[in-house]
Amino acid sequence: MTPAALLDFASVAVFALTGALAASRAQLDLVGFTFIATLTAVGGGTLRDLLLDRNPIFWIAQPAYIGVTVGAAALVFFTAHLLESRYKTLLWLDSLALAVAVPAGVAIAMGQGQPAAVVLIMGMITGTFGGLMRDVVCNEVPLVLKQGELYVTAAFAGSAAALIVQALGHAPLISLSACALTTWALRAGSLTFGWSLPVYKSRPPRR
Amino acid sequence: MTPAALLDFASVAVFALTGALAASRAQLDLVGFTFIATLTAVGGGTLRDLLLDRNPIFWIAQPAYIGVTVGAAALVFFTAHLLESRYKTLLWLDSLALAVAVPAGVAIAMGQGQPAAVVLIMGMITGTFGGLMRDVVCNEVPLVLKQGELYVTAAFAGSAAALIVQALGHAPLISLSACALTTWALRAGSLTFGWSLPVYKSRPPRR
Amino acid sequence: MTPAALLDFASVAVFALTGALAASRAQLDLVGFTFIATLTAVGGGTLRDLLLDRNPIFWIAQPAYIGVTVGAAALVFFTAHLLESRYKTLLWLDSLALAVAVPAGVAIAMGQGQPAAVVLIMGMITGTFGGLMRDVVCNEVPLVLKQGELYVTAAFAGSAAALIVQALGHAPLISLSACALTTWALRAGSLTFGWSLPVYKSRPPRR
Repeated sequence: MTPAALLDFASVAVFALTGALAASRAQLDLVGFTFIATLTAVGGGTLRDLLLDRNPIFWIAQPAYIGVTVGAAALVFFTAHLLESRYKTLLWLDSLALAVAVPAGVAIAMGQGQPAAVVLIMGMITGTFGGLMRDVVCNEVPLVLKQGELYVTAAFAGSAAALIVQALGHAPLISLSACALTTWALRAGSLTFGWSLPVYKSRPPRR
Repeated sequence: MTPAALLDFASVAVFALTGALAASRAQLDLVGFTFIATLTAVGGGTLRDLLLDRNPIFWIAQPAYIGVTVGAAALVFFTAHLLESRYKTLLWLDSLALAVAVPAGVAIAMGQGQPAAVVLIMGMITGTFGGLMRDVVCNEVPLVLKQGELYVTAAFAGSAAALIVQALGHAPLISLSACALTTWALRAGSLTFGWSLPVYKSRPPRR
Repeated sequence: MTPAALLDFASVAVFALTGALAASRAQLDLVGFTFIATLTAVGGGTLRDLLLDRNPIFWIAQPAYIGVTVGAAALVFFTAHLLESRYKTLLWLDSLALAVAVPAGVAIAMGQGQPAAVVLIMGMITGTFGGLMRDVVCNEVPLVLKQGELYVTAAFAGSAAALIVQALGHAPLISLSACALTTWALRAGSLTFGWSLPVYKSRPPRR
């Protein structure tokens, strides 16, 4: 199994858990859990594969991915009531999923020899779009829009770290690890310590 | 005309009517009706074709589909005021559209010899994504998220029925009919008698 | 540089400005500005390229487009506080972007020799989907849904104008100019004078 496939499996599993948690907040049934879990888990990688014209799409080539999302949905359906805060769990699992999905996108784009700008974007798309679809469909405030939090920024920094470490001549395994660690460190730091970049402030109240 | 093309035509026509009804609830003009009707009608099948790398997309190969959506939009624009409840009509037409779109997706995926998991998902995607786009764009509560209703579950059961009947050695026409009937029976039963699966219930109020 | 590529560049630049303005209304940081600007700027053309199976997607073939969206995002981040009304500026820039994006879509579809219905739709998709994604992600009321305004209708009329002028035997440059002018004139007239088509009116209040 290639590093990219391994990262895809990990991000599918963890994003599926976050999708199922969002489904629990919307009080769906077991099939609804599976639907939202699958959408969240494969959304970012599917868009990446469509844009890069990879054929077949990763989960069509290997339907075992879908087995993973079904299992994750069932797990959450029967155990989420044991959690103290489903939203907090969702946030932290989402940070982990982000930290494996970004290098998954980076690995595929680098493997195709894409230019740096495209590698950056594929890392960000693979990392953020599944969660974005989850939030839009479930009517949650999209995490990418949360004010004063690092989210897209963490994905960007992780992708950039991979490019820099690769340019220094290190092996893919090193650059992908740097990508995952950078992404997760920034996101976790934002969740724990409130790290953020300056946001745009309008003078008068909005509109 | 193949069974899959016939099913595509039927689902395009009926989903277009539901899109136009959603446009009437948003009080758009005739072009807005056509836009939402077309988005709803071809959305699910377009995503299916992109994912399965079918080329060209079904309505680009055969623009007569667009003629159907334009006609449906105009019909609703000029006659919707005669309806007693536009939302109720939308719900029932949507159930019919679901019941033809799911087998349309199943037929294409089976025709490509896809594995069972992919056939299931293509049935569900073709059935649900057009309506999902309609609801997200028009700011309606997505039908896939309605609590205590069978929707994605009906699409899932219909796709599964097709796979089972096919595995028993029956002809495509039989398995696709089983798919349509199962989907519609479950959705209609849910609308009429409130059939549902147990939903996830949190102990404390949401968040 | 072909007329289609030139139009793509212009629409990417102007749509990116509108995306960054929407990000300023959501009070994001600089990376968030770039994310929304890029999504808005390349969204419509990306969907067009996916649907028409153009490969690679225009901004993957030519990552300079991404440089444009990054520049636009930074420009707005540091200067938007100078604007009297960010929403009004967004509306007018959006009208310009629409007027160049519609002919960009029309040019590509005509160049492929697509039938008239497909040319019409590609003009409308390229013109409207980037802004639609911006509005859905940023939780703004989608401009395509604004009651009593010409938006999709302007895109439709512009695409139709291109087809008519082409059918009269004129060169692409003439038909694309007619497309841009028609689109912009209708949209600007709607913003300035309230031009609109009759909208659907329900008798009872909307459920």
